[in-house]
Amino acid sequence: MATDIENVTQLHLDGNEIEDDIVDPWNVVGKSDDGIDYDKLIKRFGSRKIDKDLIDYFQETIGQSVHHFLRRGIFFSHRDMYTILTLHKEKKPFYLYTGRGPSSSSMHLGHLIPFIFCKWLQDVFNIPLVIQMTDDEKTLWKDLKVEEAQKLTIENVKDIIAIGFDVNKTFIFSNFDYMGQAPEFYRNVVRIQKCVTFNQVKGIFGFTDGDVIGKISFPAIQAAPCFSTTFPHIFGNKKLHCLIPCAIDQDPYFRMTRDVAPRLGFMKPALIHSTFFPALQGARTKMSASDPNSTIYLTDTPKQIKNKVNKHAFSGGQASVEEHRELGGNCDIDVSFKYLTFFLEDDNRLEQIRKDYTSGALLTGELKKILIETITPIVQQHQERRAKITDEELKLFMTPRKLIVQA
Amino acid sequence: MATDIENVTQLHLDGNEIEDDIVDPWNVVGKSDDGIDYDKLIKRFGSRKIDKDLIDYFQETIGQSVHHFLRRGIFFSHRDMYTILTLHKEKKPFYLYTGRGPSSSSMHLGHLIPFIFCKWLQDVFNIPLVIQMTDDEKTLWKDLKVEEAQKLTIENVKDIIAIGFDVNKTFIFSNFDYMGQAPEFYRNVVRIQKCVTFNQVKGIFGFTDGDVIGKISFPAIQAAPCFSTTFPHIFGNKKLHCLIPCAIDQDPYFRMTRDVAPRLGFMKPALIHSTFFPALQGARTKMSASDPNSTIYLTDTPKQIKNKVNKHAFSGGQASVEEHRELGGNCDIDVSFKYLTFFLEDDNRLEQIRKDYTSGALLTGELKKILIETITPIVQQHQERRAKITDEELKLFMTPRKLIVQA
Repeated sequence: MATDIENVTQLHLDGNEIEDDIVDPWNVVGKSDDGIDYDKLIKRFGSRKIDKDLIDYFQETIGQSVHHFLRRGIFFSHRDMYTILTLHKEKKPFYLYTGRGPSSSSMHLGHLIPFIFCKWLQDVFNIPLVIQMTDDEKTLWKDLKVEEAQKLTIENVKDIIAIGFDVNKTFIFSNFDYMGQAPEFYRNVVRIQKCVTFNQVKGIFGFTDGDVIGKISFPAIQAAPCFSTTFPHIFGNKKLHCLIPCAIDQDPYFRMTRDVAPRLGFMKPALIHSTFFPALQGARTKMSASDPNSTIYLTDTPKQIKNKVNKHAFSGGQASVEEHRELGGNCDIDVSFKYLTFFLEDDNRLEQIRKDYTSGALLTGELKKILIETITPIVQQHQERRAKITDEELKLFMTPRKLIVQA
Repeated sequence: MATDIENVTQLHLDGNEIEDDIVDPWNVVGKSDDGIDYDKLIKRFGSRKIDKDLIDYFQETIGQSVHHFLRRGIFFSHRDMYTILTLHKEKKPFYLYTGRGPSSSSMHLGHLIPFIFCKWLQDVFNIPLVIQMTDDEKTLWKDLKVEEAQKLTIENVKDIIAIGFDVNKTFIFSNFDYMGQAPEFYRNVVRIQKCVTFNQVKGIFGFTDGDVIGKISFPAIQAAPCFSTTFPHIFGNKKLHCLIPCAIDQDPYFRMTRDVAPRLGFMKPALIHSTFFPALQGARTKMSASDPNSTIYLTDTPKQIKNKVNKHAFSGGQASVEEHRELGGNCDIDVSFKYLTFFLEDDNRLEQIRKDYTSGALLTGELKKILIETITPIVQQHQERRAKITDEELKLFMTPRKLIVQA
């Protein structure tokens, strides 16, 4: 899950011109500076746009306003969200599933997005959440040993716990550990692997004959948690619906899963997709843990954050103050403004900033200052919460056990 | 392991003429009536023939005569047996690994061969033996559900236990169960899957783009038990040599494993290969559990055994008694004689039968009678031992636990 950009992406970026946006689990590159064309992506992937009707139904169902990630189109696409909301309305059980591929010992700002949204969904729906740490995937794709990938998992899990999940409703698991703890996981993996041919994964993921067999069969590992029987300690042998909040680059895994599910007597997983969190250098690609200059880590100090934003955050402003005052800035390509849409919760203030920056009343330096003041306390509070996590707490989150399932 | 013949084989048999022997984990068909050309197979697979020198070294090392399977060339080929015998000589530890793909609720005579030999090896070497039941493989290759394959495993394990293995030195495991019991199994699987490309398994096993991804990654599952760390309850984290007794059609899995092992810091598994146990209809193919007419099951009654041998066992004799007395029979293609080489332990008596049948002094009916008298008590004693196996005994064999490892 949430794999970082491979060297391939770098090549595309260096080569500059590409024919179309590239979006798959290993590559995200937009062909233009304002980022990915998400409407086009919805068409290509065959998902549905989150429109006003859905947001209205969402608010009606949960009896409160939706998260600003939904209001602002950060979660912009879905599959079967009406089904999920109706289940909630009728007080029928379902669960959340998301994941992360641990790839560096420190997570970054962008990694927070699906988890912040997951936590909100867990709170409003009051349902169990399972979080898959794909240390097996990272071992297969990266120059990482099993032990190294498992160490990264532990570090990343601490960051995830720090986001504030309820231990009574959340199970976080390393694939390397959980595969050896629950025979139902492997049984579901084989059931899925029996339904999917190499031709199909070649079509979906672009695998080639030169790829290692672990990569080729991995999609079944990411698919298995969509089936509730993978977690007998939580769901017994009940077959429940599952909702997956994730960045849209992960959709190919779940298109495959949705194809397989009915053949195995399971429900298709529902999805709610986010846009990508842009790299500091601009919206053509997403923030990547493997490129320090593009990235604000959750371990960065206030000084590092300030320097990175001031030095690297791609600006939509003009070359000089005079020009900026006259022509105004471009919020569509300005990374600082984009980050504020993720992290500044106050809608009115955000709108004012948009107007002022567009008119030229707000300078780039001033906009960057607002961003720094917004994200620094978020990162600091995260660090404080993370520092307080005990080994026992970590162990409990990762222990297969009963969770509180909605009646 | 020990997969039964697929329909493909039947096609080849029906079509009659093939250019060369076909031997892979799913197909065994000889191009001529006296069966597979094993010398040619040794060349093709790149293994070594078991010759007088090796047998002498074997007997010197163990201080006793070798099993008649070795004397008679039933186990005829090997990889690194000198290494293994030297380990034994130097009192250094190693272990045995074999397996079985459970494909029908009753095993047949031919299935006994590797296990009888394994038991003999376990007795003379006094070392641990691990037996992999590839119920996952059977689920992937056959029209079988996970639950059905696991039921077959239990039935087959009873037959294996009945062969007389020492519970203190033998661990028998279902892949579906053990994968969920020992995280080191999956970790080793991923390590192997990271070293092998689709191109390689295509070359080794003949997989195509239309094969399901479970088949494509399965070879790593069969390879993992070659590495002692897959069994921490037996070997801790020690890296020990492993010897695999198996029919030669399983060699492709272990050629792959031997290629991968040094890259992962493990020793190459050693192998000792058997010929195939012929079908009743003749030595062009092996006995298959899915064809009742070609097969003597371990559940057959004395009457069924008698009828099957008399009715179906391919004869090397002549068309009439007169002709037979004059021309003699052909032991090279006579299935009853071939079965006696497996099950009649008395070398002198077997040689006398060979002479008498070849000269025509012994008639086909008489030869078949000797065979029936030889195998009926073997099958009956097997049934008696099998009936006495308790659920506790079965459970103990299949429980991950410490075994007695040679000092």
